[in-house]
Amino acid sequence: MKNIVTVGGGTGSYTVLSGLKYLKGVKLSALVSMADDGGSTGVLRDELGVLPPGDVRKCLVALSEQTDMVRKLIDYRFENGGLGGHTFGNILLAALEKVTGDFIKGIELASEILKVNGTVIPITKDKARLSLQFLNGKMIQGETKIDRANLQKLDIKKIFYKKNVDLNPNARQAILKADYIILGPGDYYTSIIPHMIVNGFKEAVQKSKAKIILPVNLTNKRGHTIHWKASDYVYPLELYLEKPIDFILVNTKTPSKKQIERYKLKEGDGALIEDDLDGDERVIRTPLLSRVFIVNDKADELEDTRSFIRHDSKKLAKCINKIIKNKK
Amino acid sequence: MKNIVTVGGGTGSYTVLSGLKYLKGVKLSALVSMADDGGSTGVLRDELGVLPPGDVRKCLVALSEQTDMVRKLIDYRFENGGLGGHTFGNILLAALEKVTGDFIKGIELASEILKVNGTVIPITKDKARLSLQFLNGKMIQGETKIDRANLQKLDIKKIFYKKNVDLNPNARQAILKADYIILGPGDYYTSIIPHMIVNGFKEAVQKSKAKIILPVNLTNKRGHTIHWKASDYVYPLELYLEKPIDFILVNTKTPSKKQIERYKLKEGDGALIEDDLDGDERVIRTPLLSRVFIVNDKADELEDTRSFIRHDSKKLAKCINKIIKNKK
Repeated sequence: MKNIVTVGGGTGSYTVLSGLKYLKGVKLSALVSMADDGGSTGVLRDELGVLPPGDVRKCLVALSEQTDMVRKLIDYRFENGGLGGHTFGNILLAALEKVTGDFIKGIELASEILKVNGTVIPITKDKARLSLQFLNGKMIQGETKIDRANLQKLDIKKIFYKKNVDLNPNARQAILKADYIILGPGDYYTSIIPHMIVNGFKEAVQKSKAKIILPVNLTNKRGHTIHWKASDYVYPLELYLEKPIDFILVNTKTPSKKQIERYKLKEGDGALIEDDLDGDERVIRTPLLSRVFIVNDKADELEDTRSFIRHDSKKLAKCINKIIKNKK
Repeated sequence: MKNIVTVGGGTGSYTVLSGLKYLKGVKLSALVSMADDGGSTGVLRDELGVLPPGDVRKCLVALSEQTDMVRKLIDYRFENGGLGGHTFGNILLAALEKVTGDFIKGIELASEILKVNGTVIPITKDKARLSLQFLNGKMIQGETKIDRANLQKLDIKKIFYKKNVDLNPNARQAILKADYIILGPGDYYTSIIPHMIVNGFKEAVQKSKAKIILPVNLTNKRGHTIHWKASDYVYPLELYLEKPIDFILVNTKTPSKKQIERYKLKEGDGALIEDDLDGDERVIRTPLLSRVFIVNDKADELEDTRSFIRHDSKKLAKCINKIIKNKK
């Protein structure tokens, strides 16, 4: 049995877990960022004082062995009234935190109800408010504001939590027991870095004997990482961790014309990532991109901004499985 | 195996079902009124256009074989923000109706998740808006308004639905297959009558070979049934059904002093029901009252109005079991 730990936010972890859950002989633990403060999650944080449920919900759904209908229920988003904008799963997690008095216990109970095959672990139990400071002193407070800001006009001095945020002991245990740690994919500044800057995360990863796998993102993000090359995703994380990454997964499949057009329109020029890792023996080059053209609910106001180019979960899982079986 | 059908609203049916579920050799079907339009239920009806979930929720919890924590979750009421006032279970049922596209299917799925031992059946699938007209022509629209109105100052001409409301075929099946039908306990005008006036209900009960059991209410309700005697609860229902009631359960246990004082204060003089059914052989006289003094959450603004004198579910179930086993 191999222990695999995933590290990320909601969308990326959902993709990884959705594929990995079909592998035999693996035990999955999903470490989830607690920095999210937007949308339904942000409202629940503010109004009810609960920890952010959104990314946890996505990981639970990915690992759930319940029927499609129950998984659809968890992701159902109310359209009207006081519940408008909230997904049912977020409300479930908020209620469970209230009833059990503890977010972790709430997730455990949700995992039972949803027949989750694996463990979903918040990276911290502390209220995590992400902050960013530029070299010129200017600050941005909150994950959502950082997500929407243009971070490439000014030099970033640091990304940090407003108050100290400590590693959840359960997350520490999972890291120490891990055979493999998968970093991402996900938004660099708002899904990956929020893990790196949790007190004790780096130390746990250093102490762990796990091999680290980095599936490099498929595209760059407007205002955040435009014109980044593959190596730009690798080296800074090694600096954060003070430990080398063992396997770097680079996609070789080009998006469809339709995907490219839409993505350029959305993210701008430089959205596709150049592979500059020639000669690096840790790199595994393989087709990992899904050509599924994601069309969201027409009733969703954010429809146009929600389309993604995503990893193909099955191909990603197959690639990781080869690493595990030493057949790369 | 005996088929038992309960007929009522939320609180009374909850009490009956909570006891009956421990009986062996019975199959329970709870027929639930769809007239409720107050509180969290009313808001969900208005804002989301769903059928009223509140009373269904209570019956599901009564019949659920899930852990106490899950049952507590279903009854958890949010205190703040846009979710404030809603119970989690109501939100669950609303989401399920939206996801499955059908309230009945939603209840079925909720029953699976909650491991419900029995069937909870809305008395109708139609939007049921309860209305009341006095002899002088004055009208009251809506169950909640009727519940709060003083109905004893004027003569009531009729209670009806604004638009025709037909019996749910599943409810019809349950009635036809029933060995016993239990009417109430519950508020006469707002929990019992709403079943009697559903198109097809009376005909189904007439066609059924089921014996009808009426646990007479323990107390009268201010503005509705003050100074009613036991017989006042029996004869009008027989007129509605055009069929005799077979067993009339009359409580013999007096409430505690504390309960009486509180009840008189709340409901007024005449709140305790006089037994005027001497000589009626259908009457079973036995202690059925619970002396548990119900204290609600101090944070609940309506705390003082929510205390009840209730049936003891176990004693009520024992009494019904004796009828079934013919040992009365």
